[in-house]
Amino acid sequence: MNKKMIVYTLGKLMKVEGLLMLFPVLVGLIYQEQSSLDYVSVGLIVFLLGSFISRHPLENRKIYAKEGFFIVGISWCLLSAFGALPFVLTGEIPSYIDAFFETVSGFTTTGASILSNLDHMSHASLFWRSFTHWIGGMGILVFTVAFIPLASGRTMHILKAEMPGPIVGKLVSKIHVSARILYVIYTALTLIEVLLLLLGGMPVFDSLLNAFATAGTGGFSMSTAGIIGYQSAYIDGVITIFMILFGINFNLLYFLLVGKVLAVLKNEELLWYLGIIAAAIAGITINIQPLYHSFSAAFRYAAFQVASIITTTGFATADYNQWPMFSQTLLLLLMFVGACSGSTGGGIKVSRIVMFVKNAAKEIKKLIHPQSVLTVSFEKMSVSIKTLNNIHAYLVLYLMTFAGALIFLSLENVDFQTTFSAVATCINNVGPGFGEVGPMGNYGFLSNPSKVVLSFVMLAGRLEIFPLFILFSKAFWRE
Amino acid sequence: MNKKMIVYTLGKLMKVEGLLMLFPVLVGLIYQEQSSLDYVSVGLIVFLLGSFISRHPLENRKIYAKEGFFIVGISWCLLSAFGALPFVLTGEIPSYIDAFFETVSGFTTTGASILSNLDHMSHASLFWRSFTHWIGGMGILVFTVAFIPLASGRTMHILKAEMPGPIVGKLVSKIHVSARILYVIYTALTLIEVLLLLLGGMPVFDSLLNAFATAGTGGFSMSTAGIIGYQSAYIDGVITIFMILFGINFNLLYFLLVGKVLAVLKNEELLWYLGIIAAAIAGITINIQPLYHSFSAAFRYAAFQVASIITTTGFATADYNQWPMFSQTLLLLLMFVGACSGSTGGGIKVSRIVMFVKNAAKEIKKLIHPQSVLTVSFEKMSVSIKTLNNIHAYLVLYLMTFAGALIFLSLENVDFQTTFSAVATCINNVGPGFGEVGPMGNYGFLSNPSKVVLSFVMLAGRLEIFPLFILFSKAFWRE
Repeated sequence: MNKKMIVYTLGKLMKVEGLLMLFPVLVGLIYQEQSSLDYVSVGLIVFLLGSFISRHPLENRKIYAKEGFFIVGISWCLLSAFGALPFVLTGEIPSYIDAFFETVSGFTTTGASILSNLDHMSHASLFWRSFTHWIGGMGILVFTVAFIPLASGRTMHILKAEMPGPIVGKLVSKIHVSARILYVIYTALTLIEVLLLLLGGMPVFDSLLNAFATAGTGGFSMSTAGIIGYQSAYIDGVITIFMILFGINFNLLYFLLVGKVLAVLKNEELLWYLGIIAAAIAGITINIQPLYHSFSAAFRYAAFQVASIITTTGFATADYNQWPMFSQTLLLLLMFVGACSGSTGGGIKVSRIVMFVKNAAKEIKKLIHPQSVLTVSFEKMSVSIKTLNNIHAYLVLYLMTFAGALIFLSLENVDFQTTFSAVATCINNVGPGFGEVGPMGNYGFLSNPSKVVLSFVMLAGRLEIFPLFILFSKAFWRE
Repeated sequence: MNKKMIVYTLGKLMKVEGLLMLFPVLVGLIYQEQSSLDYVSVGLIVFLLGSFISRHPLENRKIYAKEGFFIVGISWCLLSAFGALPFVLTGEIPSYIDAFFETVSGFTTTGASILSNLDHMSHASLFWRSFTHWIGGMGILVFTVAFIPLASGRTMHILKAEMPGPIVGKLVSKIHVSARILYVIYTALTLIEVLLLLLGGMPVFDSLLNAFATAGTGGFSMSTAGIIGYQSAYIDGVITIFMILFGINFNLLYFLLVGKVLAVLKNEELLWYLGIIAAAIAGITINIQPLYHSFSAAFRYAAFQVASIITTTGFATADYNQWPMFSQTLLLLLMFVGACSGSTGGGIKVSRIVMFVKNAAKEIKKLIHPQSVLTVSFEKMSVSIKTLNNIHAYLVLYLMTFAGALIFLSLENVDFQTTFSAVATCINNVGPGFGEVGPMGNYGFLSNPSKVVLSFVMLAGRLEIFPLFILFSKAFWRE
């Protein structure tokens, strides 16, 4: 194992994080806030520490899959550990564990918050909090790979481990160019959303932060009221559409840009994704119509909430805790489905779900025709039984993580819906759940051990289980 | 497809069911109840109908896997449909759908009941209700194969589809002899339990019916109070031990009988099964001790409940709805684990869980050593990737059935814990759940459509999904 390369990469990453903290410094300066000082000092320390441990240029930069997974696993833990410091220093989140939870929730684009009131927060901290969504959405390692020369041709292993979805395709032959293209599309789309929100009369600061939260499919707000506070069907509509957009595989957005429209229209995952969204909106609109007395209002809230939950953003324009159980159950199940692979969304991912179902259908056919040779095909490619075995192992580890966290959380002794949905919403990186952790509640009431467990559940969900399980694997540490 | 053979087998099966209805007739005669007449007439009609459709001896008795699955799927539906008739005729369960739910719950050894009060039931009906547990536990087709010459050497396909667990091994080379051995062990163990219950002062009728419910891991009681009513630590103890016994693979019980003790002690599934039981009892005992003020009382209730839930029996000696959420969550998760394959218990089965976890661990190791060839071994045999793929497909179909039923049940608009646990308890053939369907509640309040859906969920769980999915598969009917 190339330990030096792991340390070197972590150093580079810390330098990047230190530099990223200059943005909240800038915000603090604009609003003339004291908190600027805290961000400057933490940013400086993280940057210098990173520079120190990556000071020697490396000769052997080769890494393999296991280093890739390890780097991703450990660096997300470290980034969150450092990223939490400013919140404590400013005094806005006095408890370090709370701050860690909030930062993990930010980077993993979950959007679960321990804060009950955002009105006393400084602009710098609100900015940093939402900015972590934007950084975590596409992946900070993808960012690093894109703009800093790191490993020689082996960075694919890092990207594979960090990017959501079972299969990661390169856009162009050079990985760092692919990564750059992704970030350019990501930034461009974010800026377009900012513009559209400004046109709807949203203040600049809000537009920027809400766009970060949408782009990363995170869901943090900068006011206690959240998106409801704007009371604007236009803003709801813009955010609905952009949530759905950021839940699409970015490779497809690139294909659109270079004119490969047909490839996009034929994309199987996209069709399923849009189909599920349409069906869920239809079902919920009909179900909640009696509550809102008008089809258009019911449609508006249903569309927003379905888009918010399936993309695992977690914004809310209605207290869906008050909706009938049918709508609540559909939303809960959409959390598990999640968005498309290669997007910034969480959950199990539409592509995996489709492959699971196709494989199950194949096994039924096999019972009927035992002699025939049947394969699972996805996106016009045949999926090997090894790949299927790997995604099924993911499913099992996912369920194990879920069950383990559920047992742990049950020690809180709150109602089942709260516990179950807290785990569901954290592992799928959604944010708000149901019951006490619903859209009008928060995670502040949980004990510290539960907050730590949920932090790791969020990380496991964002990194799709394997990188975190590797950190705890005997076989890895035995080497 | 050998359609004649399917009809022929169904005919034979109906004859068996008709004959089995003589038992409640006898009970009715002993207690001088009018209901005897209803059981005689239904039994006679089912027997004659069965004789009529299987009147011609068949030349081509060959069947393949698909016929096996189809026969099992369709015959369990038919058996329940006929088995429900007496309840309606006696007027004890006036609604046919209620009676169907109750009978499916009996045959599938679920033990979920729509009845809130058992005190007005005739002895004949109480007997038939509990007797369906005993018949369904080991499987009525296994019974038929054991005692009626049916297909020539191909009946393995029927047994495979009906018996719980991913892998079915023959005890001896001839299948009908294996099936007979299983039934002899099953009957002997049931009788021993009856004797031990009689020794504890339980009335004859109660001992018989409680033994049926334990042996089939069903859980129906013959009084509204259930097992709590006996107020006896001895009876609790006997039932606890027999529930655990009936959750063990019957092949192992046979090995014990023929002196292969070492093979039993080395059985991997058994060790996991007992280990999980021990851990769960320990956890719950500690958790509920403050409620019962004594270690021995807490241990007694914990042991009984853990045995009852993991074997999917569903008896209750305590209202575990009142226990802390930690204990409730452990019990809920044990429902999914279920008992050993080749037992009368339901759930996913310990063997499948162990293979899932081993495969997931293998995939993690594979990330660390991509070049090495790793296999999953279970019971000292290497499990092929095809078998793994099949049990993973089972898991996916299981989860799909669960999600579908959850959406349907959510239309009842009751609390989440009730809905979720109702589906969990039906698909795993447990019986009581939490909330309104808890040990002190029942399923009577549900709408008819929900009762029908849950009936199919119970059948899907008992038959381990595939036979029921085949009935609804296009590929099957296209032939």
